[in-house]
Amino acid sequence: MTPEQFREQGYAVIDWITSYQQRVESFPVRSPARPGDIAGSLPLEIPTGGQDIGALLSDIDAFVMPGITHWQHPSFFAYFPANASGPAILGDLIASGLGVQGMVWATSPAATEVETRVLDWLAQMLDLPTCFHSSSAGGGVIQDTASTAVLTALVAALHRASHGQIRAAGFDRRYTVYSSEQAHSSVAKAVTIAGVGAANLRKIRTSSPGGPMDVDALAAAIRADVEAGAVPAFIVSAVGTTGTGAIDPTVEIARVARECGAWLHVDAAWAGVATVAPEYRAELNAGLEFADSYATNPHKWLLTNFDCDTFYVADRRSLTDALAENPEYLRTGESDAGSVIDYRDWHIQLGRRFRALKLWSVMRHYGAAGLAEHIRYTVALTDRLANRLRADDRFVVTHQQLSLLCFHLADPDPVRGSANTLALMHAINQSGLAYLSHTVIADRALIRVSVGTPTTTEAHMDQLYAELSAGFTSPPGRTV
Amino acid sequence: MTPEQFREQGYAVIDWITSYQQRVESFPVRSPARPGDIAGSLPLEIPTGGQDIGALLSDIDAFVMPGITHWQHPSFFAYFPANASGPAILGDLIASGLGVQGMVWATSPAATEVETRVLDWLAQMLDLPTCFHSSSAGGGVIQDTASTAVLTALVAALHRASHGQIRAAGFDRRYTVYSSEQAHSSVAKAVTIAGVGAANLRKIRTSSPGGPMDVDALAAAIRADVEAGAVPAFIVSAVGTTGTGAIDPTVEIARVARECGAWLHVDAAWAGVATVAPEYRAELNAGLEFADSYATNPHKWLLTNFDCDTFYVADRRSLTDALAENPEYLRTGESDAGSVIDYRDWHIQLGRRFRALKLWSVMRHYGAAGLAEHIRYTVALTDRLANRLRADDRFVVTHQQLSLLCFHLADPDPVRGSANTLALMHAINQSGLAYLSHTVIADRALIRVSVGTPTTTEAHMDQLYAELSAGFTSPPGRTV
Repeated sequence: MTPEQFREQGYAVIDWITSYQQRVESFPVRSPARPGDIAGSLPLEIPTGGQDIGALLSDIDAFVMPGITHWQHPSFFAYFPANASGPAILGDLIASGLGVQGMVWATSPAATEVETRVLDWLAQMLDLPTCFHSSSAGGGVIQDTASTAVLTALVAALHRASHGQIRAAGFDRRYTVYSSEQAHSSVAKAVTIAGVGAANLRKIRTSSPGGPMDVDALAAAIRADVEAGAVPAFIVSAVGTTGTGAIDPTVEIARVARECGAWLHVDAAWAGVATVAPEYRAELNAGLEFADSYATNPHKWLLTNFDCDTFYVADRRSLTDALAENPEYLRTGESDAGSVIDYRDWHIQLGRRFRALKLWSVMRHYGAAGLAEHIRYTVALTDRLANRLRADDRFVVTHQQLSLLCFHLADPDPVRGSANTLALMHAINQSGLAYLSHTVIADRALIRVSVGTPTTTEAHMDQLYAELSAGFTSPPGRTV
Repeated sequence: MTPEQFREQGYAVIDWITSYQQRVESFPVRSPARPGDIAGSLPLEIPTGGQDIGALLSDIDAFVMPGITHWQHPSFFAYFPANASGPAILGDLIASGLGVQGMVWATSPAATEVETRVLDWLAQMLDLPTCFHSSSAGGGVIQDTASTAVLTALVAALHRASHGQIRAAGFDRRYTVYSSEQAHSSVAKAVTIAGVGAANLRKIRTSSPGGPMDVDALAAAIRADVEAGAVPAFIVSAVGTTGTGAIDPTVEIARVARECGAWLHVDAAWAGVATVAPEYRAELNAGLEFADSYATNPHKWLLTNFDCDTFYVADRRSLTDALAENPEYLRTGESDAGSVIDYRDWHIQLGRRFRALKLWSVMRHYGAAGLAEHIRYTVALTDRLANRLRADDRFVVTHQQLSLLCFHLADPDPVRGSANTLALMHAINQSGLAYLSHTVIADRALIRVSVGTPTTTEAHMDQLYAELSAGFTSPPGRTV
């Protein structure tokens, strides 16, 4: 493809995305496809060459769009949003065009140094403690997801706890890991990958159903483990759990972590970026100065398209000690001299895209004030729905945190109430008018409403309330 | 950003990339930036908002481009290429515009089903054995990198070898891992992350310097380990080592793997995609039907922009058994019924982009024939340079494999010869006319020339020969 052809076909793709943005509300939010529908509509034969992008776009319209669940639809409330804002898409496109791979500083100095600076800017915007700024012993790096971040933190924690023995000789089953029972599933997955074993993951009870971690229970579990000869290596404090948005008490957890020497990782994947609005800092950033690592995802709620997790450590040598490999073909003078950052040693992968560009683009378009406005507006939209549900005795709001809301149908019988709550959710999801998800807390099924798509307005919240209200009395809500 | 603003600013970015493609040769291939240069040119203050993409592009031109090492430059020969072809960039852009996240089937059925189909098409194009097609018990998934693929394979291998005991109770130091001493550094990194320990990684000697794995040495190492009570769990066969392009004898390695029950992973990250040209299949695909897993990277040499590693397993349950977590908020009816693929259980991360679109776009633009032509042409360019170096008694070509060439200056003294070889490489890299890398084999420094950028022509190869030839007699080649 010549540059001139690229320009022409590139315009066509930009036009297509523009049109998609204009008509996103015309689609059912959740794809109505059944298993195999989309695969069945695609040819079995390998595509022949010589087709321009217009042919691909036509086939996407015809065969792919029926299988798309529209994360960018303003009535997408099922999962934490994956914000594909214009500035982010275009920043990412610039990175694709440059096509550089910043695995070590020398393979594109700007890819490393812009990332370092952008992550320092973000640390300032979120008012993160100075231990996470690159001017200290720590610093930040872009990871793909908070799952990878927690695995990276766990590997560094095990390296520190074992004084390098795991890396040298292998894991030996003495190490224990702690999180709230409401922590994200990626903690358990990291425990599996790092060889800790499920039996050595303590899922600490919450102080209320779906609430924050019970720190007394954490301290008791650690005491029992230490008495039994285990080495507590890693504690996760969840700032905004996935299920209900609970905020673990990081300050108290940090005290426990310090006493036993465990690594403290704060997983604020969704909620952390809310601190771009200063009024949320006191609650969400409390205790971060005691954390060894911290992760939050601009791709969830800061208008930056997936993937963009920002991961900070207080001691960058803890990562490079745990992870660095130095094959001859990747040795460079600057790396050998220790005068540069080689981000390959800060995560699982070797290769890496220039993802800082999209975050930079977002910062320049919206600025800190614009991003704070996005946070505040989506919280206000959530409040709007919460207030209507609270005023309606057919619903019971159980959890509200920032832009996440959990509720169930009022019913003294939890089994019947759960069934009807899920039936209501399924009916709305099937309608295509909105997309909701669920969780189960204390044997009660709860509907989760997560707000954050930039095009969502009060009208969409009111429409959702109307659907919930109408669904309550309609057959799908009663038939189970 | 409104859709109309997105269109206008999107055109500007497309224009900028078009211009970049047109003028890429005007830049020094390797950035001349010194550590801190780029960071020092950026402001310390957080960007203010309200700026359009033109302001970002201006700053990129002024402050970022001096720090870019141009992977898309036709004289970039340092690492395996990261092909940012037009169709790939635009396929990726479509994915960004849709902004869907295919962690489970239900969160966008098309993201899963198109990926499954595209990976089946690729399996056909590369003539991979049917065990890797989704119609069998196996199938393919897109990973970010071959590093993540080998870690995923290792975790599945350890799960199988331990009959689930590692996942349940933790790693217990009985398991051993094997690769050639020339295998990629990601094998050692995966061994670290999974807790195997460096002491349990056997780096098997090669049958010649920089050559393929010595299978007798592998068999002997495994016998000794088994006698000592270890459980051989994982063997990597490298089809195209990073340093020299050596091709391990997968058929013989598979025999050893079968005897001891170890998982066989074939890492063909760079070389594997060459089998789109049928004449390479006999050598590169030999023995794949005995492998448990296989990885090759369209982002290296198949005109698909980073990141796109394609990872295939013969038994997809080996992945889901080892990795699946099933939190309530991610449970769906289709997943519970087992009627769909949830790719989150096939890799480390939970979230995932719709990367199949860019691979599909590449297939439709180039077709199998066009992709084979790209492979053949870049191999022919490599041959062209190799033939000239072989005909020139100032150079010794030590390794040539597909589009990778290794050589050193003729000098009976390996210390002096290595120093002068590296000095020649540094001089060319500093000139900005081409970018080369090196490796060390048997105490000899070798220059690596990796060809594969789609705009590279015979003239660029001839220019490189001229630079090597001129550099040989110039001071930088003599001063060390």
